[in-house]
Amino acid sequence: MIESIALQSVGELADGISNVWILTVSFLIFFMHAGFAMLEAGQVRAKNVANQLTKNLLTWSVGVVVFFLVGVGVSNAAAGAGFETPFMAEADAGTAEVYINWLYGAVFAMTAATIVSGAVAGRARLRAYVTYTIALAAVIYPVVIAMTWTPEIGLVQEITGTGFTDFAGGMIVHAMGGLAGLTAAWILGPRMGRYNDDGSANVIPGHSMTFAVLGTLMLAFGWYGFNVGTAGVFTSSGAFNGAVLGRVAVTTTLAMAMGAVGAGLVAWAKTGKVDTLYVANGLLAGLVGITAIPHIATWWGALAVGLLAGAQLPLVFSFVENTLKIDDVCAVFPVHGSAGILGALAAPFVHHNLQVGILDAFIAQVVGVSVIAAWTVTATAVVWYVLKMLGQARVTPEHEQEGLDLSEHGVDTYPEFGDEDGVVADGGFVTDGSTVRTDGSVATNDGDSK
Amino acid sequence: MIESIALQSVGELADGISNVWILTVSFLIFFMHAGFAMLEAGQVRAKNVANQLTKNLLTWSVGVVVFFLVGVGVSNAAAGAGFETPFMAEADAGTAEVYINWLYGAVFAMTAATIVSGAVAGRARLRAYVTYTIALAAVIYPVVIAMTWTPEIGLVQEITGTGFTDFAGGMIVHAMGGLAGLTAAWILGPRMGRYNDDGSANVIPGHSMTFAVLGTLMLAFGWYGFNVGTAGVFTSSGAFNGAVLGRVAVTTTLAMAMGAVGAGLVAWAKTGKVDTLYVANGLLAGLVGITAIPHIATWWGALAVGLLAGAQLPLVFSFVENTLKIDDVCAVFPVHGSAGILGALAAPFVHHNLQVGILDAFIAQVVGVSVIAAWTVTATAVVWYVLKMLGQARVTPEHEQEGLDLSEHGVDTYPEFGDEDGVVADGGFVTDGSTVRTDGSVATNDGDSK
Amino acid sequence: MIESIALQSVGELADGISNVWILTVSFLIFFMHAGFAMLEAGQVRAKNVANQLTKNLLTWSVGVVVFFLVGVGVSNAAAGAGFETPFMAEADAGTAEVYINWLYGAVFAMTAATIVSGAVAGRARLRAYVTYTIALAAVIYPVVIAMTWTPEIGLVQEITGTGFTDFAGGMIVHAMGGLAGLTAAWILGPRMGRYNDDGSANVIPGHSMTFAVLGTLMLAFGWYGFNVGTAGVFTSSGAFNGAVLGRVAVTTTLAMAMGAVGAGLVAWAKTGKVDTLYVANGLLAGLVGITAIPHIATWWGALAVGLLAGAQLPLVFSFVENTLKIDDVCAVFPVHGSAGILGALAAPFVHHNLQVGILDAFIAQVVGVSVIAAWTVTATAVVWYVLKMLGQARVTPEHEQEGLDLSEHGVDTYPEFGDEDGVVADGGFVTDGSTVRTDGSVATNDGDSK
Repeated sequence: MIESIALQSVGELADGISNVWILTVSFLIFFMHAGFAMLEAGQVRAKNVANQLTKNLLTWSVGVVVFFLVGVGVSNAAAGAGFETPFMAEADAGTAEVYINWLYGAVFAMTAATIVSGAVAGRARLRAYVTYTIALAAVIYPVVIAMTWTPEIGLVQEITGTGFTDFAGGMIVHAMGGLAGLTAAWILGPRMGRYNDDGSANVIPGHSMTFAVLGTLMLAFGWYGFNVGTAGVFTSSGAFNGAVLGRVAVTTTLAMAMGAVGAGLVAWAKTGKVDTLYVANGLLAGLVGITAIPHIATWWGALAVGLLAGAQLPLVFSFVENTLKIDDVCAVFPVHGSAGILGALAAPFVHHNLQVGILDAFIAQVVGVSVIAAWTVTATAVVWYVLKMLGQARVTPEHEQEGLDLSEHGVDTYPEFGDEDGVVADGGFVTDGSTVRTDGSVATNDGDSK
Repeated sequence: MIESIALQSVGELADGISNVWILTVSFLIFFMHAGFAMLEAGQVRAKNVANQLTKNLLTWSVGVVVFFLVGVGVSNAAAGAGFETPFMAEADAGTAEVYINWLYGAVFAMTAATIVSGAVAGRARLRAYVTYTIALAAVIYPVVIAMTWTPEIGLVQEITGTGFTDFAGGMIVHAMGGLAGLTAAWILGPRMGRYNDDGSANVIPGHSMTFAVLGTLMLAFGWYGFNVGTAGVFTSSGAFNGAVLGRVAVTTTLAMAMGAVGAGLVAWAKTGKVDTLYVANGLLAGLVGITAIPHIATWWGALAVGLLAGAQLPLVFSFVENTLKIDDVCAVFPVHGSAGILGALAAPFVHHNLQVGILDAFIAQVVGVSVIAAWTVTATAVVWYVLKMLGQARVTPEHEQEGLDLSEHGVDTYPEFGDEDGVVADGGFVTDGSTVRTDGSVATNDGDSK
Repeated sequence: MIESIALQSVGELADGISNVWILTVSFLIFFMHAGFAMLEAGQVRAKNVANQLTKNLLTWSVGVVVFFLVGVGVSNAAAGAGFETPFMAEADAGTAEVYINWLYGAVFAMTAATIVSGAVAGRARLRAYVTYTIALAAVIYPVVIAMTWTPEIGLVQEITGTGFTDFAGGMIVHAMGGLAGLTAAWILGPRMGRYNDDGSANVIPGHSMTFAVLGTLMLAFGWYGFNVGTAGVFTSSGAFNGAVLGRVAVTTTLAMAMGAVGAGLVAWAKTGKVDTLYVANGLLAGLVGITAIPHIATWWGALAVGLLAGAQLPLVFSFVENTLKIDDVCAVFPVHGSAGILGALAAPFVHHNLQVGILDAFIAQVVGVSVIAAWTVTATAVVWYVLKMLGQARVTPEHEQEGLDLSEHGVDTYPEFGDEDGVVADGGFVTDGSTVRTDGSVATNDGDSK
């Protein structure tokens, strides 16, 4: 496998390098699903953990198939290129380009999709969530990329004439997901007990800070693929693209760091304590903030955008919770939405080498943000409103009360911990035999169930 | 480190690319051990978690050393090439090829080995398990690869004349491990309390769905290395191998997704609920199903194989549990065994460009599956039967009752949770001082042990 | 993205390969922070988990910014090259080299920093820990690399004339961190209740073996980047560097494996049981042991160094605990300190091709270890002693008693488990509304808080 190879051309070498880089970063971005699963699972009640995990598994599983069969075609059609999909490539020899690029596009698409599950946790029906995921993967997200990344000249660029800057999806992927989540949570209404009759909010803490922080750090790891991997190894003129790769690596790192610092400082100023979940989500907000602009931001711009993205988190969360009265369980809007918008709008002000007028550049960003936001909010609201009208959006109060794990999935996430009410649930494979939870103790009949 | 380098030849460049790709995917495949550890830990009782984790750590630690010192030599010898091992390369300059290839081979070998631990959870003695791991790493797995991957012409190809198709080890690694696990669990007998006197089965749910799903997604991440990484960057004629790389990336993704969907649908049909653990294990079964054939499967073939691999999971699990009465704790046979066999047998029917007759191709697959299965089951049965006859296979009923963590490892995995019986255990480093579990509360003597 | 590219020169290709390799391994090394977070969280009490997680988040977040703005400049200045920092590169076109190399250096620096948090767990004030992290990132670690890696001729080489061998930081990163942790823990004093009045030690087990082992395996995954990634893809003469890459991959694997075996065997000999945490930490000690020498060790040398590094762990831990009476909570000295020193000193004895006299080589290693140890212990002691004199080093006894999560962060890591004392804490985002922990049950008012 390591013997010297007689190569046909230097171009084959360059293709090899470029593509194993794309594949490697695609794997890293896929790993972000594991990060989201842990981050969200940690932030929900123990009775809803399996539901959250299932939503994450199905977001990926249903979503990629829909994106393969339908989504890419819709995106191409919306961009005026006809309904071309990757599976049509099967007929010809072009599977290499189409297939590798498809996976790379799919892991971005599924990131947008999975963000929504954190906002609607604890009360959305599984079938409603899966229905929305299908809509997002087939149409909503494909239209967003048709307006921006897919075509040579996207809608946003046509409108503004300047071109919308979003390198790795700070707006297109993250803020799109954050806005979709906020919209869905708004239509769905808050969890039972989240607000008192006087409108004041109750805190419903997640069941495990450890899983939440684990998810945070797994996401940060995958994010290096998300941002740095968006930079190709070579420029279009065939040179090593090191200046961009290096800049993205550094600005991503600095913004992530300052996001944690910014959120931690604001939490400290408000309460005198450094709230762990703010620090973790602040780190993610810093990453979201830089994701549109890591290739053009100066080092001080990355520090500033990260700091602001982190600092806005507690403030925007409080605004959503107390003013909008929207129960955004995992804070997906402050983390992905407002932070992503902030980063996209900051582009002209932290650019290391802006070639157009700062006002022109800013207007292009405002237009791009507005168009994406308007479409995402509208389309998401329509889907969830229809589901709500059909009585399919939300579980029954009884099911919400006992937890979605039992009602939707028939499982108990932690059958040995915290169960004092003797609920019997299948924690694993369902059998036709007895469903009494038991183990060795039953056989020896000594009454010790541990 | 980034300065331009005057290269001696283009071949050196190609070697560089090919090998850092092999190394990168080897690291990803190694990470699957972390995934297996979490998947299995989540599926066992809290009293047996540390035992499961220790088995995973020792599978890798003991296994790679045995595979380095003995296994590779046995494989070469069994393939008729003499007892050549990687450590003999020390004497000459050939460490590059031999050493990098050895690590790549070792991470596959250890995947097969670690699957077994999930089947025998909760009652196998540590020394019995380690003994079997040594046998697997030294002889059982090396003989399997001697019949297939190691030589130019393997036993299977000699018998059938057509060649056995198993790209990344769907049969050779996963089904081999799944069959070995089933055999070991059969000889070992079920856990106490798993079956009632009338033969009906009791469910013994795992202690944490969260760790199980975390492990699932970590495995899926590593699996991209397992499958895509088996495709080299360049073809033997020196061209970029993008058509294969792209196909493997897409078919692996689609089969994984449909595996989750298939298992979820069958669970839903059977019980009206979407069991989380079925969805997770279905995703893995989809991956196992495609692993033999990702390089040749059509996109619709990948969808179909994934769907079937997921859908068979609940059915085969029920068959193993209720008909065979084998206590396969982590469902390793339905996930790795039957799914792997299904994928290998599906090869001719989903091939995008089959060059031989479909019947010839199918016979080759049947022969390959049969030979590997016969050898694996026989060799595994002999080892565990001898251990059982020596009274070394299984812990005592008392130890099984109190849990293997305490009896085999002297630890309590969660000393602060779920312990109402006052069991005293060292959760950490053993000291010669007091073993009373304590912390700050003791010093201030306020009776609050939290 | 995959079209054939007309390349300007073969050198651009080599730059591309070399740098995406450096970036990939930098991401892997970054992931070690997630591993450290889990390893340490698992080894502390449930009441201190969020504190440990926050320290890990802030080590990275504060540390990288300080290392970017100050640390690199101090290192260059201490090496006699003037205060050159990466942000100065912004002014010219040289960002590629400087920025990619900076990230690569930063992930090593932050590994050294994060080790300390495990030693001072459960009683250090957050502000004290962050202050020390700043000192380490700005001065203490930069001076160590100024003496060794930064310059052409480092202090150690000047003294000994032979050159100090430390390939990937077994001494420079790990033992440096281990020594710093031991020093800090010594000055800080043990946790309350850790020692009885007669000087005997009490065991305070960590709250989750599962998280500890998860962290272990995540670290091992990242470690392949740490060690193998330190080998460039090409030699300085432009050849493929496969002999070194292969050797590092194999010696790292074998030493890791034997570390687990060595620690497990000693634990078994001492207590008759195979302590899970010893096996896990032994695996890490094996990795630490080989990290200075993976490029030159023979295969049998790797086995021996790994075995010794693992075997010394229980013995050195007992010495630190019972003789030095230092409360090194996560055993960072036996794992990172003594194992790293052992590996560095073993260099001449396991070298596959030593070019200088064995005694000369050994003296160079002894001098290097001594200089680094003296500087690290002195500088660390000064910082913590000053903090202690200012009354800022340690939380109050009341805060230590109730746990640092509540007093320092205002959170409860597991609000649904193990809380029998009715402590009210915000487990998530702090609001201005009610802080009563509640959920759906409140609204329906049925008294069932689950």
